[in-house]
Amino acid sequence: MKTNNNAAITAIATYYPEDILTNKMLEEMVETSNEWILDRTGIKERRILKGEGNGVSAMAIPAVKKLIEENNISPEEIDLLICCTVTPDYVFPATANIISDKCGLKNAFSYDLNAACSGFVYGLYTASQFIESGTYKKIIVVGADKMSSIIDYTNRQTCIIFGDAAGAVLVEPCSEEFGIQDAEMGTDGSGFQYLHQKAGGSVLPPSAATVEQRLHYVHQEGKSVFKVAVTKVAESVETVMKRNNLNVNDVDWFVPHQANLRIIHAVNERIGFAPERVTINIDRFGNTTNATIPLCLDEWKSKIKKGDNVILATFGGGFTWGAIYLKWAI
Amino acid sequence: MKTNNNAAITAIATYYPEDILTNKMLEEMVETSNEWILDRTGIKERRILKGEGNGVSAMAIPAVKKLIEENNISPEEIDLLICCTVTPDYVFPATANIISDKCGLKNAFSYDLNAACSGFVYGLYTASQFIESGTYKKIIVVGADKMSSIIDYTNRQTCIIFGDAAGAVLVEPCSEEFGIQDAEMGTDGSGFQYLHQKAGGSVLPPSAATVEQRLHYVHQEGKSVFKVAVTKVAESVETVMKRNNLNVNDVDWFVPHQANLRIIHAVNERIGFAPERVTINIDRFGNTTNATIPLCLDEWKSKIKKGDNVILATFGGGFTWGAIYLKWAI
Repeated sequence: MKTNNNAAITAIATYYPEDILTNKMLEEMVETSNEWILDRTGIKERRILKGEGNGVSAMAIPAVKKLIEENNISPEEIDLLICCTVTPDYVFPATANIISDKCGLKNAFSYDLNAACSGFVYGLYTASQFIESGTYKKIIVVGADKMSSIIDYTNRQTCIIFGDAAGAVLVEPCSEEFGIQDAEMGTDGSGFQYLHQKAGGSVLPPSAATVEQRLHYVHQEGKSVFKVAVTKVAESVETVMKRNNLNVNDVDWFVPHQANLRIIHAVNERIGFAPERVTINIDRFGNTTNATIPLCLDEWKSKIKKGDNVILATFGGGFTWGAIYLKWAI
Repeated sequence: MKTNNNAAITAIATYYPEDILTNKMLEEMVETSNEWILDRTGIKERRILKGEGNGVSAMAIPAVKKLIEENNISPEEIDLLICCTVTPDYVFPATANIISDKCGLKNAFSYDLNAACSGFVYGLYTASQFIESGTYKKIIVVGADKMSSIIDYTNRQTCIIFGDAAGAVLVEPCSEEFGIQDAEMGTDGSGFQYLHQKAGGSVLPPSAATVEQRLHYVHQEGKSVFKVAVTKVAESVETVMKRNNLNVNDVDWFVPHQANLRIIHAVNERIGFAPERVTINIDRFGNTTNATIPLCLDEWKSKIKKGDNVILATFGGGFTWGAIYLKWAI
């Protein structure tokens, strides 16, 4: 028996740095070309957070401040802030604590959530439970990553893909007609080695050797990731569609994680959403890991109408994946 | 409006390594003495996970397997696993994914939660929401840390305190009479610098310099932590007691995070639980961060009776703190 409250996204804000890393600039850094990058990934440029000592919170804090200010929310009203990131300011404590402090969320408790690229969707789903149970009324979910802090800019396989950005959404109760209707999540840890960072955790703590061997960077085996990503994203989207009797024309907006344009196209070849219903901005941001879906929602929010059927879909290291079906509430 | 289901801890299991680090051994490593350590911390010995390539999952996996096997749970029934840790196997993906894979939790999704020492309590509270909302029936919350991977064994302030261990609890629905009744959580990020790891995140990524300067270890300013810890733990315990009309004799078991015996005593001087009602095993394990409360619950579970009033209380880096009031359900 659920409460009468669904959880809904009721506000969105984002922040991305001014500095742009273009394909042309990458051509001068590693052996690659604009054409190759565009063909393989669909990415034209990414944002990069510069400035010594600037961690991921340097983007997340302005995103949360904007969320609060633009929507006239009193920071004291926020009950919980979940920061989804793979590039926290520190190994500990949680970046969520720092964001909450700097944004004046005096009555919120806060923690970090790590599910690689799927963190934001997992965090949104988690926030929705605190709303549905009736425990809380106002939760902020942050999806933010400073991927440039864990990218090896001598590795042409990975440095062309990732970018830096932050997004934040407000999650509040709403009537059953709107908000999150259903979710389907999955994990398969047997694939962890295809997309991981070899050193820096308790398996292989930092040492002179791990730094010298460049093991503190994203390691990705693209082909293995691609196959599982397409299958699992398509499966989870199809599962929520079937369970909610949605056919392809009932879905107004498909908002996929922006990992690679080819993955998005391969998923949609299988499902068949009209191209104008699929949000794509990977060309301008690259894969910003936990920030991709908030970046899309923020960019498309003026087009999405109240009551529209929206499906968010994610895939990331772990492997982790999931889909959330929601009826837009604003 | 809540569901009719409360969330309850229905099973517990732990794992700790065989290797023991005694005060006598520490006397030979840093300038310290058994008497000084005992007097300042109450710790006699700690467990240390040895073996190259053994991350925190090397303890968490046996703990979860024991939980499943001893309680005849089918691993396929588990809906969600949350791993609370500050020493994950890797920066990404989540250690939770690896644990789930190795324990055969084929139908669970999983993620890591970081709230420093308060992680386990925050994770348990989060799991309870998935139960109360009616979404899931069986959740595993892991609290595990291989603190020896981030401890500087030339620093006599910190190396005497921390140890390695893992615990896991099963969270299931139960009738309103039992299970989690109330919770009070808080965060203050303005205190992050008193207990943090300076390098290894996006503020200061690993480099030859950060390794040489020994910045990948726990940095703690004990006095500042002590004062806030005592105040905030006492306040949150008093808050849940007052809100639930519990006087000091109504509480059958007080289960505090085991950070330092002096903190536990100072908190209890203020509150006044009978000493035999306070679970203490820091003498044998030290501060195992996310594992302290599961270690206590596992050790005391034969004494705690169904219906007993239990208060869990935590404090950690961030700062983060919280108290959960539950009526024991098993």
